[in-house]
Amino acid sequence: MSWEGSLRDLGEEGLLSMLRKRIPAGRGVLLGPGDDAALLEWGKELLCLTTDMYVEGVHFDLSLLSAEGVGFRCLAGAVSDLAAMGAEPLAVVVGFGAPGGVPASVFGSLLEGILQGSTEWDIPLVGGDLVSAPVLVLGFTALGRAERGRVLLRSRAVPGDLLCVTGPLGGAAAGLALLKAARDGVEGASELASSEKGRAAIRAHARPRPRLGAGRVLAAAGVTAAMDVSDGLGIDAFRMARESGVRVEIASERVPLAPGVREVAALLGLDPLGLALGGGEEYELLFAVAPDRLEEAEEALRRAGEGGLLVVGEVLHGEGAWLRTAEGLADLASFGFEHYRSGRSGGPEES
Amino acid sequence: MSWEGSLRDLGEEGLLSMLRKRIPAGRGVLLGPGDDAALLEWGKELLCLTTDMYVEGVHFDLSLLSAEGVGFRCLAGAVSDLAAMGAEPLAVVVGFGAPGGVPASVFGSLLEGILQGSTEWDIPLVGGDLVSAPVLVLGFTALGRAERGRVLLRSRAVPGDLLCVTGPLGGAAAGLALLKAARDGVEGASELASSEKGRAAIRAHARPRPRLGAGRVLAAAGVTAAMDVSDGLGIDAFRMARESGVRVEIASERVPLAPGVREVAALLGLDPLGLALGGGEEYELLFAVAPDRLEEAEEALRRAGEGGLLVVGEVLHGEGAWLRTAEGLADLASFGFEHYRSGRSGGPEES
Repeated sequence: MSWEGSLRDLGEEGLLSMLRKRIPAGRGVLLGPGDDAALLEWGKELLCLTTDMYVEGVHFDLSLLSAEGVGFRCLAGAVSDLAAMGAEPLAVVVGFGAPGGVPASVFGSLLEGILQGSTEWDIPLVGGDLVSAPVLVLGFTALGRAERGRVLLRSRAVPGDLLCVTGPLGGAAAGLALLKAARDGVEGASELASSEKGRAAIRAHARPRPRLGAGRVLAAAGVTAAMDVSDGLGIDAFRMARESGVRVEIASERVPLAPGVREVAALLGLDPLGLALGGGEEYELLFAVAPDRLEEAEEALRRAGEGGLLVVGEVLHGEGAWLRTAEGLADLASFGFEHYRSGRSGGPEES
Repeated sequence: MSWEGSLRDLGEEGLLSMLRKRIPAGRGVLLGPGDDAALLEWGKELLCLTTDMYVEGVHFDLSLLSAEGVGFRCLAGAVSDLAAMGAEPLAVVVGFGAPGGVPASVFGSLLEGILQGSTEWDIPLVGGDLVSAPVLVLGFTALGRAERGRVLLRSRAVPGDLLCVTGPLGGAAAGLALLKAARDGVEGASELASSEKGRAAIRAHARPRPRLGAGRVLAAAGVTAAMDVSDGLGIDAFRMARESGVRVEIASERVPLAPGVREVAALLGLDPLGLALGGGEEYELLFAVAPDRLEEAEEALRRAGEGGLLVVGEVLHGEGAWLRTAEGLADLASFGFEHYRSGRSGGPEES
């Protein structure tokens, strides 16, 4: 592989793979690029560092969600990367790019959303950068701390493990689809948007909840392999399989659908399973656990008020990530969002 | 002040001032927004965190500088913020946004430039994010460590201090102006660009050197007030005066001109002093030191192979930053770059 063609030709995954080969191991670096966050050695502890960039028109649309909501959910994405490592937040910095003609009130609302998340997840906003840019761009970098021997890596799944998630999926994708449909005047969309189910889906999109508590509980309970579902269960399960050098299989009937997913799918003619597999950004954790530790992990989550867990599949020898349905096996890697590719996919038929 | 009008109406300084009023003090945060970097308490040490965003067409132009050069100098800017605090680099993460049609080789060259800087300044690249964006956007976040009681803050200048810089100024601005002139076929520009003086100026632009060693030496020598000259000596001196609650005066005849500044200014009909006061991004340090510590600071810099220092002015009671010339006083705040304003200024007449 070489740097030939365009970014689109190589795709996000291809670029990442090139980049990881090129980057040398660093002094004091326990874990470099490739997981949800980097880990640095720091005495008896570990520092955890992660960065996310969000671009208007790619990651968010101010005609669908308020600037306040955008600020909140972008911070959620960065904080979720700390959660996915079993880390505790220390601080966040934000780079902000925008055209000079943007109303200052948009900036003020973004800041309010960020500060709401900052308070909710106890991660102080300590700095940033303000620059001119042709569209709104937000760069969030979160710093956290973790304990040695109690971190969650996506590369630690082993054959025999059960594959689990910390909550139901597809809510954020359904909420976004519903907001678009309501904006565009699709019949029945406004009614659904104001129903209990519709509001639950919209809330999953607008107010995602990074699973910081669940991450720390799972790390303490001896779970070693986890990541956050940020781009969709399908592609994220594929990434866990690749990084762990294993095969994962998810049973279609076990994929838990979030409230509102069925209803939105029915209204808009979408596949509810596609929303759950291809929709990310609601930040549940995907993790692998040995069967004899499953009960302990579940009880620990419940005791901590972090809900339970849902077994969705299993870890096997081999490679790739597969969805087992009544008709056979489908490639999970085709469900989810990859930058520079054709966009968010609802399943193999669209890719 | 409120969030009325556009970003341009409030300006970068106005927005920062609003933002700083709104952000609460955070647990474990020794220093929040407003300096070159944030400082976090961490046992007996301090962590130092800083983020910079760079946008194509605003901060860099690939028709003037190679992608490798852009990667190198953008990392230099982030590392310089650590230098300005007297901190030592630990790690850097990079957010990368670009249109899918950008050649992958541009990405590869950017990465090479970043890795060159990473090696040179011993700051491992540990992670990042790749996203689609309408133009190239680079977000650098650098993490460092510092010692309690040995940090450099821009807010610590006191009346009676001498104002100093660690090296001559204007080279990067002259180099950029020369590159533009040569590209645009200005008569004599190509010849100057290949001369020793011209090459020195271009090197100052393309290969800036963050003053990490100088920052640590100054902090150890008891200097307490410093910042990097990133937007121009004029506006940066104004910022130091404002944050310290003092007045600073710089003597025009003492402003040290970098190699090539006179020659580029003569060719292009520019004011050499304007280049030195209004041009930033060469990352010398601006610092204030008590007169009885000046000699110690200078010797410490020389012993460490960090060159010497140049006294450019003095710190007084009062406010604002002023340039003292034979004709009287001029406002230094008008020399330098501020986002959302009219762009990089060569002096009061342009603002």
